Amino acid sequence: MAMVNGDASSSYAAASPEPLKRVLVTGGAGYIGSHIVLTLQETRKYKVVSVDNYHNSFPAALTRLNEIAQAALPENATNQEKDSAAVDSHTCDLTNPAQVRAVFEKYGKGGIWGVIHVAAYKSVGESTEVPLTYYLNNVSATVCLLQTMSEFDCVRFVYSSSATVYGTPPIIPIPESTRLKADSPYGKSKIMSETIIQDLCQAEPDRWRAISLRYFNPAGAHPSGLIGEDPRGRPGNLLPLLAHMAVGRVKDPKLRVFGDDYPTPDGTCVRDYLHVMDLAKGHLLALEALAPDSKVFDSCSDPARYKAYNLGKGKGMSVLQIVEAMRNATGYDYKCEVVGRRRGDVPDLTADPALAEAELGFKAPQNLETMCRDLWNWQQKNPDGYGAE
Amino acid sequence: MAMVNGDASSSYAAASPEPLKRVLVTGGAGYIGSHIVLTLQETRKYKVVSVDNYHNSFPAALTRLNEIAQAALPENATNQEKDSAAVDSHTCDLTNPAQVRAVFEKYGKGGIWGVIHVAAYKSVGESTEVPLTYYLNNVSATVCLLQTMSEFDCVRFVYSSSATVYGTPPIIPIPESTRLKADSPYGKSKIMSETIIQDLCQAEPDRWRAISLRYFNPAGAHPSGLIGEDPRGRPGNLLPLLAHMAVGRVKDPKLRVFGDDYPTPDGTCVRDYLHVMDLAKGHLLALEALAPDSKVFDSCSDPARYKAYNLGKGKGMSVLQIVEAMRNATGYDYKCEVVGRRRGDVPDLTADPALAEAELGFKAPQNLETMCRDLWNWQQKNPDGYGAE
Repeated sequence: MAMVNGDASSSYAAASPEPLKRVLVTGGAGYIGSHIVLTLQETRKYKVVSVDNYHNSFPAALTRLNEIAQAALPENATNQEKDSAAVDSHTCDLTNPAQVRAVFEKYGKGGIWGVIHVAAYKSVGESTEVPLTYYLNNVSATVCLLQTMSEFDCVRFVYSSSATVYGTPPIIPIPESTRLKADSPYGKSKIMSETIIQDLCQAEPDRWRAISLRYFNPAGAHPSGLIGEDPRGRPGNLLPLLAHMAVGRVKDPKLRVFGDDYPTPDGTCVRDYLHVMDLAKGHLLALEALAPDSKVFDSCSDPARYKAYNLGKGKGMSVLQIVEAMRNATGYDYKCEVVGRRRGDVPDLTADPALAEAELGFKAPQNLETMCRDLWNWQQKNPDGYGAE
Repeated sequence: MAMVNGDASSSYAAASPEPLKRVLVTGGAGYIGSHIVLTLQETRKYKVVSVDNYHNSFPAALTRLNEIAQAALPENATNQEKDSAAVDSHTCDLTNPAQVRAVFEKYGKGGIWGVIHVAAYKSVGESTEVPLTYYLNNVSATVCLLQTMSEFDCVRFVYSSSATVYGTPPIIPIPESTRLKADSPYGKSKIMSETIIQDLCQAEPDRWRAISLRYFNPAGAHPSGLIGEDPRGRPGNLLPLLAHMAVGRVKDPKLRVFGDDYPTPDGTCVRDYLHVMDLAKGHLLALEALAPDSKVFDSCSDPARYKAYNLGKGKGMSVLQIVEAMRNATGYDYKCEVVGRRRGDVPDLTADPALAEAELGFKAPQNLETMCRDLWNWQQKNPDGYGAE
């Protein structure tokens, strides 16, 4: 394992024309986190610090990230450039204040420019079974992180929220102004965290800046096939499940389609899939929007510098469309069985992405075909995910 | 200081005809907590354990409680009875999982029958300035407490909520079915905690039982004058402020009345005051309603055994009525100055207490005159609160 723990000050060496901004990504080894880390590395403007407890992720992802970043450097790269391209990774549980503090202490006051807080438990179903675990890991951990940030004068925050905050939305496509009303503890934990962040920005409007990004359905993988989604156990989401089926990792490869009598074009549920690399770029845009010269907070109705944006394509895809796209990408002949509706499923969750486009300049141009191709590329190259390492 | 740390097993000695139920009261030394502890002691059915971090309370309150409890024992009380009447008190911060666990470990699995969770930060105004502190102490602490309880098979919970959860209520008097919508981080922290508790009861319906009690405006003190409200600094609430003025503790004893142009009988804000001893009895009733033979959960719409009740008199009193009542009780000539409305104040917060009466048998019979008399009795006997000890 080649995890690199960089020196705290090296990226700020005098030789550098413009000092790199150090950005902490929580959950940096996870599916979305790892693609964000890679996107930040590619800019060569950020020095990335990752914290992860590897509950639902693998340290190998960070090794791969470093390989990708080193390979992308010019042949004549300096040692400093090579060091900057490496991720500082820390094994850290955000529910443990002492561990969080130790990470910030390493870089000192002002040593971390901003935080992208991705780490969270993310299964809607599981959250109804063990709600306390979800509130601890998704809400208490966020409070702990924000408190430590404040103490270390780190007051720029990008938060991973979710379309789940809309529950059953009254309007499709869903604008950000929709009332927040989640059904599951998972969704509620995201609303609570957004609320806490917003209250903090309201309490200290001259200090804090924060953006919540409400994810729709991220899919695909980095085109290199070196990093991707590697859920533990049977995948809970449709696309990884289809990829596992095609690669032969699912024992009973019959796909249950939960309901085909929804008020949608083909009767199956509609979701708004976007490529995980597009999603990751949204985080880069949000991070840049936290800079002093940013205009995104000009439209805030109060002095608080807080905004929430949808990250989606604005284009709904049905379960059957997804299956068909994966059939084309993999050549695998999925056997579908339509069963009854699943409790808690919402017919349509399609984003209105206009605000993110207008204010952040966000777009999600990659289409479903590309998502499926990149997912299948990752899955073929890593039939057992990171597990083999 | 005569705080008693009782032996974990003494109250369950074989000689006892019916073993006492051990009940943990968080914030047991605080204003409301201390009156709850006393009420539990008076039943002689409960052995009380108090945890408190003394952030806004004084250990002296527990010494006083023990004095009251010992004095109430019959002359021929056994040593066991004397021991049972004493509070086991622990200095413990609920945001520190290790400290919480240490308390539960002392009594072992099943050693604590139920918990009354009163401890919280409670200033609406302060919560807008330091929201993270409020979310940490009011939400994260509740999650930590519930997790530890679960681990030690302690699954009966009475939660101190607040009328603040109703924000600006659409209907007066306010029924429990009113939508929850708080304006301040304090109020939101109470809604979040209620939500978390309810989700827990839904996840484990055969295990957990919980009741949230939404307090209106507790006032007065135990008639002995030995325990009462002793806010640190200038009191944030009206009645303690009036008592401090009458006893000469306020430097600029001019009372600012925030707005006299509200749509209320005399134009000043209306609140629902109830005697703190009546409020405390509500906790005893709620605790009893957690017993296996309780009927209060029969009316739940789902299997979760969770209920929320208003604790109020159902009778609104205006600021000017309160001042007049305190003038009668103290003989002090309050100088009022009407100033502009205060941001965040709601015209009328009067409870509909019908549900608590019907299901818990709750009543708040004591009138405003008695509240003022008992408050003044406490303040006269303790002009400096517990501070002198």
